[in-house]
Amino acid sequence: MDDPRGLRWDGEDFEFIEQTLLPHEEKWIRTKDWRVVVDAIKRLAIRGAPAIGVAGACSVVLAKRCSADKIEFEQAVEAIEHARPTAVNLAWAVNRLRDRIRDIGEDEEVLRRLVEEATAIANEDARMCDQMVEHGLELIPDGASVLTHCNTGALVSYGIGTALGVVRRAHEAGKLKHVYACEARPLGQGARLTMWELDKLDIPGTLLCDGAVGSLMQAGRVDLVLLGADRIAANGDTANKIGTFQLAVLAKRFGIPFYVAAPSSTFDLNAPDGTSIPIEERDADEVRNYRGSQISLPGVKAYNPAFDVTPVELINAFIREDGIFIPPCEFPVRRP
Amino acid sequence: MDDPRGLRWDGEDFEFIEQTLLPHEEKWIRTKDWRVVVDAIKRLAIRGAPAIGVAGACSVVLAKRCSADKIEFEQAVEAIEHARPTAVNLAWAVNRLRDRIRDIGEDEEVLRRLVEEATAIANEDARMCDQMVEHGLELIPDGASVLTHCNTGALVSYGIGTALGVVRRAHEAGKLKHVYACEARPLGQGARLTMWELDKLDIPGTLLCDGAVGSLMQAGRVDLVLLGADRIAANGDTANKIGTFQLAVLAKRFGIPFYVAAPSSTFDLNAPDGTSIPIEERDADEVRNYRGSQISLPGVKAYNPAFDVTPVELINAFIREDGIFIPPCEFPVRRP
Repeated sequence: MDDPRGLRWDGEDFEFIEQTLLPHEEKWIRTKDWRVVVDAIKRLAIRGAPAIGVAGACSVVLAKRCSADKIEFEQAVEAIEHARPTAVNLAWAVNRLRDRIRDIGEDEEVLRRLVEEATAIANEDARMCDQMVEHGLELIPDGASVLTHCNTGALVSYGIGTALGVVRRAHEAGKLKHVYACEARPLGQGARLTMWELDKLDIPGTLLCDGAVGSLMQAGRVDLVLLGADRIAANGDTANKIGTFQLAVLAKRFGIPFYVAAPSSTFDLNAPDGTSIPIEERDADEVRNYRGSQISLPGVKAYNPAFDVTPVELINAFIREDGIFIPPCEFPVRRP
Repeated sequence: MDDPRGLRWDGEDFEFIEQTLLPHEEKWIRTKDWRVVVDAIKRLAIRGAPAIGVAGACSVVLAKRCSADKIEFEQAVEAIEHARPTAVNLAWAVNRLRDRIRDIGEDEEVLRRLVEEATAIANEDARMCDQMVEHGLELIPDGASVLTHCNTGALVSYGIGTALGVVRRAHEAGKLKHVYACEARPLGQGARLTMWELDKLDIPGTLLCDGAVGSLMQAGRVDLVLLGADRIAANGDTANKIGTFQLAVLAKRFGIPFYVAAPSSTFDLNAPDGTSIPIEERDADEVRNYRGSQISLPGVKAYNPAFDVTPVELINAFIREDGIFIPPCEFPVRRP
């Protein structure tokens, strides 16, 4: 076993594994340049809501260190905040750092406080993962076969991950029979990253194409669906990787429990419901091509939203660091 | 416009377009060897239920010509019949040729009759497509946006195709607004073949990943779902490309009509329902890789059924060459 990991931060340098090269190459990039981090977030070299929150926080520190003046720094912070639109953790983390700047004075002191806050965000993220997976474990029956989507393990957090963290904990506790991982086209985070994490952790897993979910459920092979989220509205409507919504519709048809694991930092209580969540539409080339291989004709139009919204009525429970929430429910504001 | 085509047959040579190379290369293979055709069916270089019926019939002729004796011929016919298990058109076509052998005498006469029958099957297939698309046209409202799956056009038949034939006819009749084509992982028949046919025919189309269907329907962009079939049981349960079943579940949720276009040769009235339809499980490499590009780790397990079964209660109508059938209904035996 070889512990998978996605991010490292020592207060000076930020390091990330170049996820676009996985599972074929494990290349770490170490940088002091916030632009490198923002570019990595845009390219999905760093991805997953908690991870881009942590990366955003650390890159504010990097930006503070290299900015010539306040205007340059503020522009950098803006760019960091808007690197990707859907995962609310990014704006949430950047705003936590902004608050620390407002609190106090200038330069050296500001920088010290920012490092402190970014480090706190990273460490809290790891701790929230640990708390989440303990709560999540209660929802996993003995001998469970779990279907998951996209990638929600160590790569998407500063800890052991969200939904895949729960899977890992269930495996350690001897409760897990099998994990089924959807590929998650267009970028294949399930095929590339989840299968890589499962392999590292010696967890028995099977990959399937996104179109084969109905067939798998029809065959009675899935006991529960467990996945993460990019932004959850106040009523529980959940934006997550494209394909999530249809998994939920299928799970409902078969009476299969459908669980979302996400830290409180992924909840956007300012968004009353899913209609308020911005959905990123990405380049058509992601659909036309795959891993450098051209699939369709270069000129064809493609529909490529990165996320979809699952209405709360299809979700049986939310797993957060502060417990399990069964909708309809009020979600507490994040504890400070 | 450039008429797409998949098969040619002159009674001597059998020709097919190498579909695995599409859309990047249009390579025709001309052969007198039944083994080349069987291999092409196994490799999905020739695919689609009607097309493999026609190819099967023609390869029986090729086998008859090159077989040294009756045993060798019968072994060849067996191999042709079992090249792939799910599409019933293959066994149906081979059995039509078997019947012609039983009817009559020896060698020259048998060969003449087999050529006649294979040619009849090919021409009937083209005629059935023409009849099907006229019936199908009645189901397409003006300005319709159609979602389709896999590839069901000229490539899968000796004519203009089944479901995509209806789309083409609707376009000619000025009724079509747009076609959305699912990619159809693992082999991408939607991305590679349907988009290629639409491009040739100047029909406005958009490609989407199989996981984006729920999002597309949620956005209100789909007026009806129209696709083909590989085998339809007596009660109307329908085996078709993996992913079809979940499209039907989603369509039901949104009240979107779900139509299946297939000639009577795709109906297996000996199968009482979907549980009697054998589902081909294909190699895990199809899922782990894509178009020669390695996606996941080489050793990972994959779930890779080529088809799934959609229960008849999710299907609003069947389009056949002899009319439109609204289930629950009895399907007539194929007219001679």
